[in-house]
Amino acid sequence: MSVYTSVSEPQLAEWLRRYSVGTLAAAEPIEAGIENSNYFVTTSQGRYVLTLFERLPAAELPFYLDLMAHLARHGIPCPAPIANLSDQYLESLNGKPAALVTRLPGRSLERPGEGHCAELGALLARMHLAARSYGAYLENPRGPKWWRVAAKEVLPFLKKDQAELLESELQFQSGQRFPDLPRAAVHADLFRDNALFERERISGVIDFYFAGVDCLLYDVAVCVNDWCLVDPAEDPRLEPKRLRALLAEYHAVRPFTALEREAWPAMLRAAALRFWLSRLHDLHLPRPGMLVHAHDPEHFRRVLEARRREAARWID
Amino acid sequence: MSVYTSVSEPQLAEWLRRYSVGTLAAAEPIEAGIENSNYFVTTSQGRYVLTLFERLPAAELPFYLDLMAHLARHGIPCPAPIANLSDQYLESLNGKPAALVTRLPGRSLERPGEGHCAELGALLARMHLAARSYGAYLENPRGPKWWRVAAKEVLPFLKKDQAELLESELQFQSGQRFPDLPRAAVHADLFRDNALFERERISGVIDFYFAGVDCLLYDVAVCVNDWCLVDPAEDPRLEPKRLRALLAEYHAVRPFTALEREAWPAMLRAAALRFWLSRLHDLHLPRPGMLVHAHDPEHFRRVLEARRREAARWID
Repeated sequence: MSVYTSVSEPQLAEWLRRYSVGTLAAAEPIEAGIENSNYFVTTSQGRYVLTLFERLPAAELPFYLDLMAHLARHGIPCPAPIANLSDQYLESLNGKPAALVTRLPGRSLERPGEGHCAELGALLARMHLAARSYGAYLENPRGPKWWRVAAKEVLPFLKKDQAELLESELQFQSGQRFPDLPRAAVHADLFRDNALFERERISGVIDFYFAGVDCLLYDVAVCVNDWCLVDPAEDPRLEPKRLRALLAEYHAVRPFTALEREAWPAMLRAAALRFWLSRLHDLHLPRPGMLVHAHDPEHFRRVLEARRREAARWID
Repeated sequence: MSVYTSVSEPQLAEWLRRYSVGTLAAAEPIEAGIENSNYFVTTSQGRYVLTLFERLPAAELPFYLDLMAHLARHGIPCPAPIANLSDQYLESLNGKPAALVTRLPGRSLERPGEGHCAELGALLARMHLAARSYGAYLENPRGPKWWRVAAKEVLPFLKKDQAELLESELQFQSGQRFPDLPRAAVHADLFRDNALFERERISGVIDFYFAGVDCLLYDVAVCVNDWCLVDPAEDPRLEPKRLRALLAEYHAVRPFTALEREAWPAMLRAAALRFWLSRLHDLHLPRPGMLVHAHDPEHFRRVLEARRREAARWID
């Protein structure tokens, strides 16, 4: 369960007086997410999500909140931070940095179909276009620099074949340099549980707290590695119809450049590596106080191996 | 009808590529409003209103658009301007300044009841609190300075009793000075047709193109003079139940100061005077090319006379 800091209804009712969103009608803890404490908050005005930031460095929070505000005002259906009466997005509550954001309708899908992947592809491209005018900078905290640090930390825990795969992939990736790929602030964690659908249309993209500036192509690769597997539980190969639906709608809004097409197979591997590494790290070096059960790293090892095998096929 | 500048679907589809709101699904001219050309626009992403500004000075448009953006990010249900890919709210289309804003759900009510007036009062107060952190300045273009100019222009057209009433009220108002009343950017035109309701809840406040910085109390008086009449068509006296509902909910969020309570009867008269004057002006000195039928000024003369008679009663 994800609520580390509890907030009573009287506390919350009083705290909401710092905003112009009306009076508290209901509050309910959200039992998902691993980094923050979250509540659904309903007021006389509308439906919101309250987040208390448990671990993110306070200095980085404006990057995330301003990014969501930027995307929302470009028409992207993402949580829009609500400014308080002092015109600030960042507040505090019970000693934690806190923010109130709009709550989006819809629900996430475990088994998206081609139509859902097409919706995601179009929205992802629109989000990338909108993000290019966002001025703040925060390097993707799970980028290549972090891979090397994390790899050093997890290697002592790995079996021989795992260690060989990790070293081989790091070796391969260190030869890949893409200084000329289009970059912007990207979501970087747009898995199925971070997209909401309502009547077959994508109604929201949520949880921007892994966002950072990186290649747009990397963000596409993260999505494809989660949305377009033959079977997310059992078969990590890419499923061609959903893959084509996602990429076709993405391209209709923002076509890949020639360099992006060239980089694509390596980027799929990079996106798999990043999550394999973070899951290995969470498993073998859990942070103190981490309450949630770590995801099994093996899933992303299989995804990475599949991408390595498929690489030749996806260069067209 | 209010569409002065027409826009074809192919033009609009092409123009929307300047935004990240998806592709055009439908467009429909809006036959209401008198100052601008408006279209409902539906895209693959959502529902919007496109406004082409026909008369407002281009230099003032950022005040209105930024005010709506400011209020929207404070949680006020008002049209939120959509930024284009260059991160600007103000665009141009067919040679006119243009903006795309979100379309709010709900519909306006001709005969609001007590509950609706209560909803309006609460929202108005929240809007006033949120507006106090808005930094831009535009004087209410229909304030006391404008009254004197407009009165001079319409007086030659008035009958004797009308002229006497106008001069008497201007004389009275010139003795009223409220430098210490709380001020901010206010809507200043929040008539029944500019509020939307959905399932008995207020779902939107629209048409901010008469907004300006003025006393908050003036904004309340404009609302009361339209929402709380015994019969908007036939009896301009204040209806106590709706009046109390509106003010009680307003006060629950932002209580009137002592000075505001004192100024209230005169402010109700000022708000009636402003609309009587503008309707007289539109009738006797219509602007060239004005396509709409002017509102009958007599309604606001009756409202003004009723407020003058009631004044003593509403000082409590």
